[in-house]
Amino acid sequence: MKSRFSGELILVIYDITDDSLRLRVSNFLKSKGLIRVQKSAFLGRATKSLRTEVEAGLRRLLKNASNVNVQIYPIPPSSFHRRVVIGSNFEEEESGVLVF
Amino acid sequence: MKSRFSGELILVIYDITDDSLRLRVSNFLKSKGLIRVQKSAFLGRATKSLRTEVEAGLRRLLKNASNVNVQIYPIPPSSFHRRVVIGSNFEEEESGVLVF
Repeated sequence: MKSRFSGELILVIYDITDDSLRLRVSNFLKSKGLIRVQKSAFLGRATKSLRTEVEAGLRRLLKNASNVNVQIYPIPPSSFHRRVVIGSNFEEEESGVLVF
Repeated sequence: MKSRFSGELILVIYDITDDSLRLRVSNFLKSKGLIRVQKSAFLGRATKSLRTEVEAGLRRLLKNASNVNVQIYPIPPSSFHRRVVIGSNFEEEESGVLVF
């Protein structure tokens, strides 16, 4: 079956020690329409402009922060379709569903 | 400057509650030559056969485990070169260095 979506995605993963900063980061990523796929990982469709916004927003939030590491990976559809997931899905009340 | 490496990478991210299982998973990923880039994320060059080995090994380790989620993403060189890292690098004594 052909995917309904052929654009690029981004995967954002983070190590953030401070609880309140980590919460602000996850709220920011949700506000940009990304979906939580693990405790510290968000995934979503992303145009180039959204990617730029996400990067700028994260840099703003993390300015002056120490002990943080955030990585953003562009994920082409061919990578997404070959991704492997082992184990149970992340569950949270407000969890969205990523449909492709 | 042209990259010294043009093959595909894999990114492995995990949510594992059990400390001892999490340690076994990280030791396994290190043993396969992957490099830790965050507390719960490993990255490395991966031929198709290594990717298969990593997936099989993780499925073996995580068989019967609950509350685990592991995701493996193939990362083409074009994605790796566009990745964005914000903050300090992960530091651990035995940390390798990813050179591309």
